[in-house]
Amino acid sequence: MVDVIALGEPLVQFNSFTSGPLRFVNYFEKHIAGSELNFCIAVIRNHLSCGLIARVGNDEFGRNIIEYSRAQGIDTTYIKVDKESFTGIYFIQRGYPIPMKSELVYYRRGSAGSRLSPEDVDEKYIKSARLIHSTGITLAISDSAKEAVIKAFELAESRSLDTNIRPKLWSSLEKARETILSILKKYDIEVLITDPDDTKILLDVTDPDDAYRKYKELGVKVLLYKLGAKGAMAYKDSVKAFKEGYKVQVEDPTGAGDAMAGTFVSLYLQGKDVEYSLAHGIAASTLVITVRGDNELTPTTEDAERFLNEFKT
Amino acid sequence: MVDVIALGEPLVQFNSFTSGPLRFVNYFEKHIAGSELNFCIAVIRNHLSCGLIARVGNDEFGRNIIEYSRAQGIDTTYIKVDKESFTGIYFIQRGYPIPMKSELVYYRRGSAGSRLSPEDVDEKYIKSARLIHSTGITLAISDSAKEAVIKAFELAESRSLDTNIRPKLWSSLEKARETILSILKKYDIEVLITDPDDTKILLDVTDPDDAYRKYKELGVKVLLYKLGAKGAMAYKDSVKAFKEGYKVQVEDPTGAGDAMAGTFVSLYLQGKDVEYSLAHGIAASTLVITVRGDNELTPTTEDAERFLNEFKT
Amino acid sequence: MVDVIALGEPLVQFNSFTSGPLRFVNYFEKHIAGSELNFCIAVIRNHLSCGLIARVGNDEFGRNIIEYSRAQGIDTTYIKVDKESFTGIYFIQRGYPIPMKSELVYYRRGSAGSRLSPEDVDEKYIKSARLIHSTGITLAISDSAKEAVIKAFELAESRSLDTNIRPKLWSSLEKARETILSILKKYDIEVLITDPDDTKILLDVTDPDDAYRKYKELGVKVLLYKLGAKGAMAYKDSVKAFKEGYKVQVEDPTGAGDAMAGTFVSLYLQGKDVEYSLAHGIAASTLVITVRGDNELTPTTEDAERFLNEFKT
Amino acid sequence: MVDVIALGEPLVQFNSFTSGPLRFVNYFEKHIAGSELNFCIAVIRNHLSCGLIARVGNDEFGRNIIEYSRAQGIDTTYIKVDKESFTGIYFIQRGYPIPMKSELVYYRRGSAGSRLSPEDVDEKYIKSARLIHSTGITLAISDSAKEAVIKAFELAESRSLDTNIRPKLWSSLEKARETILSILKKYDIEVLITDPDDTKILLDVTDPDDAYRKYKELGVKVLLYKLGAKGAMAYKDSVKAFKEGYKVQVEDPTGAGDAMAGTFVSLYLQGKDVEYSLAHGIAASTLVITVRGDNELTPTTEDAERFLNEFKT
Amino acid sequence: MVDVIALGEPLVQFNSFTSGPLRFVNYFEKHIAGSELNFCIAVIRNHLSCGLIARVGNDEFGRNIIEYSRAQGIDTTYIKVDKESFTGIYFIQRGYPIPMKSELVYYRRGSAGSRLSPEDVDEKYIKSARLIHSTGITLAISDSAKEAVIKAFELAESRSLDTNIRPKLWSSLEKARETILSILKKYDIEVLITDPDDTKILLDVTDPDDAYRKYKELGVKVLLYKLGAKGAMAYKDSVKAFKEGYKVQVEDPTGAGDAMAGTFVSLYLQGKDVEYSLAHGIAASTLVITVRGDNELTPTTEDAERFLNEFKT
Amino acid sequence: MVDVIALGEPLVQFNSFTSGPLRFVNYFEKHIAGSELNFCIAVIRNHLSCGLIARVGNDEFGRNIIEYSRAQGIDTTYIKVDKESFTGIYFIQRGYPIPMKSELVYYRRGSAGSRLSPEDVDEKYIKSARLIHSTGITLAISDSAKEAVIKAFELAESRSLDTNIRPKLWSSLEKARETILSILKKYDIEVLITDPDDTKILLDVTDPDDAYRKYKELGVKVLLYKLGAKGAMAYKDSVKAFKEGYKVQVEDPTGAGDAMAGTFVSLYLQGKDVEYSLAHGIAASTLVITVRGDNELTPTTEDAERFLNEFKT
Repeated sequence: MVDVIALGEPLVQFNSFTSGPLRFVNYFEKHIAGSELNFCIAVIRNHLSCGLIARVGNDEFGRNIIEYSRAQGIDTTYIKVDKESFTGIYFIQRGYPIPMKSELVYYRRGSAGSRLSPEDVDEKYIKSARLIHSTGITLAISDSAKEAVIKAFELAESRSLDTNIRPKLWSSLEKARETILSILKKYDIEVLITDPDDTKILLDVTDPDDAYRKYKELGVKVLLYKLGAKGAMAYKDSVKAFKEGYKVQVEDPTGAGDAMAGTFVSLYLQGKDVEYSLAHGIAASTLVITVRGDNELTPTTEDAERFLNEFKT
Repeated sequence: MVDVIALGEPLVQFNSFTSGPLRFVNYFEKHIAGSELNFCIAVIRNHLSCGLIARVGNDEFGRNIIEYSRAQGIDTTYIKVDKESFTGIYFIQRGYPIPMKSELVYYRRGSAGSRLSPEDVDEKYIKSARLIHSTGITLAISDSAKEAVIKAFELAESRSLDTNIRPKLWSSLEKARETILSILKKYDIEVLITDPDDTKILLDVTDPDDAYRKYKELGVKVLLYKLGAKGAMAYKDSVKAFKEGYKVQVEDPTGAGDAMAGTFVSLYLQGKDVEYSLAHGIAASTLVITVRGDNELTPTTEDAERFLNEFKT
Repeated sequence: MVDVIALGEPLVQFNSFTSGPLRFVNYFEKHIAGSELNFCIAVIRNHLSCGLIARVGNDEFGRNIIEYSRAQGIDTTYIKVDKESFTGIYFIQRGYPIPMKSELVYYRRGSAGSRLSPEDVDEKYIKSARLIHSTGITLAISDSAKEAVIKAFELAESRSLDTNIRPKLWSSLEKARETILSILKKYDIEVLITDPDDTKILLDVTDPDDAYRKYKELGVKVLLYKLGAKGAMAYKDSVKAFKEGYKVQVEDPTGAGDAMAGTFVSLYLQGKDVEYSLAHGIAASTLVITVRGDNELTPTTEDAERFLNEFKT
Repeated sequence: MVDVIALGEPLVQFNSFTSGPLRFVNYFEKHIAGSELNFCIAVIRNHLSCGLIARVGNDEFGRNIIEYSRAQGIDTTYIKVDKESFTGIYFIQRGYPIPMKSELVYYRRGSAGSRLSPEDVDEKYIKSARLIHSTGITLAISDSAKEAVIKAFELAESRSLDTNIRPKLWSSLEKARETILSILKKYDIEVLITDPDDTKILLDVTDPDDAYRKYKELGVKVLLYKLGAKGAMAYKDSVKAFKEGYKVQVEDPTGAGDAMAGTFVSLYLQGKDVEYSLAHGIAASTLVITVRGDNELTPTTEDAERFLNEFKT
Repeated sequence: MVDVIALGEPLVQFNSFTSGPLRFVNYFEKHIAGSELNFCIAVIRNHLSCGLIARVGNDEFGRNIIEYSRAQGIDTTYIKVDKESFTGIYFIQRGYPIPMKSELVYYRRGSAGSRLSPEDVDEKYIKSARLIHSTGITLAISDSAKEAVIKAFELAESRSLDTNIRPKLWSSLEKARETILSILKKYDIEVLITDPDDTKILLDVTDPDDAYRKYKELGVKVLLYKLGAKGAMAYKDSVKAFKEGYKVQVEDPTGAGDAMAGTFVSLYLQGKDVEYSLAHGIAASTLVITVRGDNELTPTTEDAERFLNEFKT
Repeated sequence: MVDVIALGEPLVQFNSFTSGPLRFVNYFEKHIAGSELNFCIAVIRNHLSCGLIARVGNDEFGRNIIEYSRAQGIDTTYIKVDKESFTGIYFIQRGYPIPMKSELVYYRRGSAGSRLSPEDVDEKYIKSARLIHSTGITLAISDSAKEAVIKAFELAESRSLDTNIRPKLWSSLEKARETILSILKKYDIEVLITDPDDTKILLDVTDPDDAYRKYKELGVKVLLYKLGAKGAMAYKDSVKAFKEGYKVQVEDPTGAGDAMAGTFVSLYLQGKDVEYSLAHGIAASTLVITVRGDNELTPTTEDAERFLNEFKT
């Protein structure tokens, strides 16, 4: 039994060894990723236990995901090997056409991971956890995956959600808005992780205070509001915290938000205040963007502490 | 207008930088491949012109295929960018569980390449060519692709076919047998490229002489019969040629058969006898297996000549 | 027939895999470059057609240049294989002794490329183009190459010239000054690309306004004045535009000026105003300096647009 | 509780990226290895469970060993983090001065792994297992490690031992002989793994039949006698099996014997006969020597089966 | 006979090919380093001769150090091959948990280098040199190494010392303080190289002026006071110089201080004033941090001059 | 003063990281080579001292050659930096069109190395040596280089010559024949190193016995007759020795002959008999062909001994 459970699709990532359009890249570096898997690793680095409910294909990439997850301490009991489909993968194009930004090319349609379904959600497992996490990605990849999240949220003691709207995965932004809003309306969300772009889609506002007010009305208790390179904000009751981003050499920003989210939620669950949790979240996202790979540099609580004490940008 | 036209799906290949199960491979090397594309390059290295009828996605990998094809001299006029789907790719696992053998992991279901259809086959273009080539792979990837081959064969002056049965691409071997046999029955094949495994499936024989006799009855004029590391045979009328394989350090055998086929067909079309064409085909396949990449080492006629004169195994 | 034609020497570039003095570099990464080839690719990415008049050796590096050019859409009809000489190459030492700067080590004296001569310049081809481009490099590498430029400029409808004074290629700066000035005096230049260092040599001024006034007197219509990391200026008639450079992580600045020049000229030829053309030129040069390789990241018009809209430094 | 338990020192391996004297090697590839860890992975690939009793340092390399072991399915409950010392490592020099052979350079004296001691051996854990395995390496690295093996062997239901005499680790060969012989005399060994070199030291014979007779007198039930590239033999009661080695391209022979031993013991424990177990052991060692890394290519039972059916050398 | 002699332990460095915790690093790049060896190379690049008194093991890594030193022009006459022990090595973890900072993992306890002893110090050799250099590292690694430094300082005409307190190498900071202070009290130091952290430990002050006053009382003639990314200060008599650090892309700061120290001391010995020597020292340290490797980019006097003239941050 | 002196051009080698036509190679690995430099290293590995008389350019590659030579123990006193020209380089294409063979692409015409001249040959230095070595390459690269060899041979106590006819470097084979024969006629050669191809050109025979008889008539005392993969023969007086080649995995045969020659000559000079010297020469050439790089794996006398005792092909 674990403290936190996430539902989502773990993926194999092929990161460009050199920057630029993929057609000019000769070598690709393999990493294991996926928003919820990244989140789990951040939770664990901050000393809570975490399980992932997911499906992978009966293939080398699926085995790779399970072995990596196990190595990183994720409870893999509920990562199911689905013999009917393949493991989802994606490629990362870095630095083109926007320096320090990445573009993702997915090969995940119909993947084992997208076949996640309510039958994969074990009631007892869910009920034993302190918090259930998922993201807008899982809501987007298939109806059955969305239903799995709904079943888990239904049974959950508390919930966190990262809106994570990836336009490529939704038939329309309207569909994204509708789906995510219906979740927000139906379930009290302990921690909502989002940003101005997603909030624009969902609530047609971008200002952080407006966003918090509106999300609060929808039952959100704590808001983690990511501002990209500028940093992030966190709201809880009357507390409003802001932590500026650090200036570092960016290799690949992919996964930074997940590291921040998992770190924040893990510390928050352990009773840390939002300022502390936010600062650690920023430390995590800052480290993650300095390298290829989404979760290898997610710091432990102690290492984030060192970062926050010693790093002068 | 070109001498030879091939129909098939060009793919981006991600070849393992190190041998072994894919989950232990950290780096992948990108190459451009696909059986018919490999065939075209062999045709061109032997100084005939060649065009490829195919579809790729509207993405970096699609652009990569077109640019590489153009670089290698393939006529890309009929490589269509299909905005409805993605470019097919595959991974190569080398040396496990069989040393010197490779296993392919495809991400091509529903790809742009598999959406090849009769509408992509331009009558005038086909009629202007001396020979139309395709493979069992194109027959397997979709009904529309199969129909495209049939349309082209219907219009063709002469035809070559590589049976190339990839069990992963067929719903059943029975289906493969039926489809390929119906083609063989319907059209006179100038050059058939096959091997004992495929012939076992198609005709339930493996012995080369038996195979030739049976294929001949089906209208095959020339048979190129590949025997793996042992070498290959070629039959035409009363001529029966055998060329032993060379012993070299194997890096990846993928693509060797295509290089042999394209070389053989190109030389045969230029009036070379089967012994000569076969020897050059063996030179081509021998070089290709010494490296990652399916077509970079396919030799020109002159370089194959040097190989045949100078290489002492 | 193409919109733009450039005359110059394409080269194979061996870029240091790690920074520092070449003697400490263990691996070199091959790229295809050369100022005019880089220019052509920028022209094409901005949707005009472009041909390169050049010579390469009858060797693998020559074939590499032709194949790469063809892949990138350059009209290679007038890239001649010169059996009398070898293909020119160069090495790039990065980051020493000046961080973020590169030093070039040429092996091009007597190369096929430097044997470019007036006989390579086809009158009909030149006359069919809207603009002929060359650089101070081509003027420097040999008398016959200089004569080729002069013949082409003589026949041209309009001309662009990048002064590009590389002291290593000239017997003296005086010689460079004299040669380039004589061209400027003899031919109306539609677009002159230069910078304060070259202008100091040519006209003994560095101030942009002074430079423009003097170049204008010499018949230059549009001036693109590159200011390195600071950005660039463009002058046309009474319009004076300045675009600040973006701050990015510099890998190798080589080729940035060519990308800017080709982008600017291509857009200008399509009727874009100088501000637009300049901004796109800056986008191109900014992307190019973030990687090894001179032209792979040169953006399309659309991608530069995205860059200009989305990139926050 | 697990089927098999091994005691020994897991190590981080730095394998030369290129062959030759270490001073000419610029890059090193990290792997996780150690004779007993390799053995465990072979046991697991053949579908028994396996635990490793060991110590690692409180450092990144120690964490690396634990994470990798966990990923590969090893029970890591008894891998203790010893804060008093560091994790042992070694470098592999390949192909010099003997082609296809490797030399090991250890940095393990005083390592955490060598501090393994009887207190690390949990009686209940040992008694629950079907077989306890160790090697001459563990007997050599320290007195406390030797005592740990003795304690475990004392409590064990059955035992396997790989003599594995590494002269660098012993003060003298005499000491090695004495120590190992005393173990052989004191405990019945279910499976002894050894070779002519070690047997020469231990019993002053090298002939397989002589060796088996003498080992049998010492209470050995099954003998796995490794003959390097020639293959291996196995003896049990009156059965004497020989399996010839396969000719493959050798990258690094390190770890081949461990893969063979673990495979053989795992299958033998599952009731397979010695011929079957031996053949699978040879398949395992053959695959392992084709790559850098000691255990990544150790095949599953099913994959070894494919190897044995399909591999033609 | 040489101008400068340094005493210390040369080491083989294994630098992470990618940033992050060592357990996630797959490839390591070998360099030759060690504080005093780095110092020597800086001395030589500034055109004085330099010898290193040291021990290495009788192994490939020892040979590597000697060959590299010889290549770089270090007098290796007194680098002794000690057959009793091994060559010390270390790993560099980059960018975690602090971006742009590195952590060192040593395998040097009991190494040949730490066995440096007074018997290695040749009186005539020492007396022939203009300056003897060592660091707090050599004072820390063993009593015999400390005694070697004392013997050399006793015989020296003049001395430079870099305090270089590495907590991992000292039993306690108190021990470090005591040892270094006793050296400072006993010998007049021509040039002391230190920083606020070390000065805090030694004198319980950090302010540069305070530090200089106190060090001066202890007989220090010239003080080079390193301020990390901020730059450095130098004091001599009434001269107080400050040179700001340059902003560059940091790959690995290891070795920067040694390059600065060796450059400063070499130029100072040649009669350059402290401003000049300091500026060159900053140029050296700036270049060194842009790459992996401690000394490859240490500039010659002329190259530093170019840097100082041309580099605009 | 040294035992052996060689005259020739050291070169920087850029070896293909992957096999195949150079245009498909993306990365190149730098090595230091040149026939006479390789020879020198072999001499030194076998414990005689050796100096190289040569010129390099005043550039990074020239410095690279000097530093590497110094590292490997070559006396570099007479490697002159020639400011008038550049350092010669070459590329190696491996495995195409002949597997296991390499093709060299030179950029050395007019190089500093080819400007070697009699003025570089110091009489005292030459006279102090026991043997002067050069090759047909040095005789081919320029008249002044040839004259340098003649001057050195004139002054020499004894001489060795490797015929090493590289057709690309000679205007005609006739010229090669004439030049080398005139040397053979004019000077007694202590050791001649050659092979059937060169002997065919020189004497129009290939049979070893015939060759020896004819060379002997020309004053050759000892003949080392290389037979490629088959092995080599050596003749002295009435002794005729043959040593078969070993079968190993070939990476790049370049430099194998130089390693054999230097090893043979060095041992012969130390009084070893031809069988012993030949066997060690074969050990050296066998090791060299297993890697990229011409001299890194050239074994010491002791390591060759181990090879000869332990290597079972």
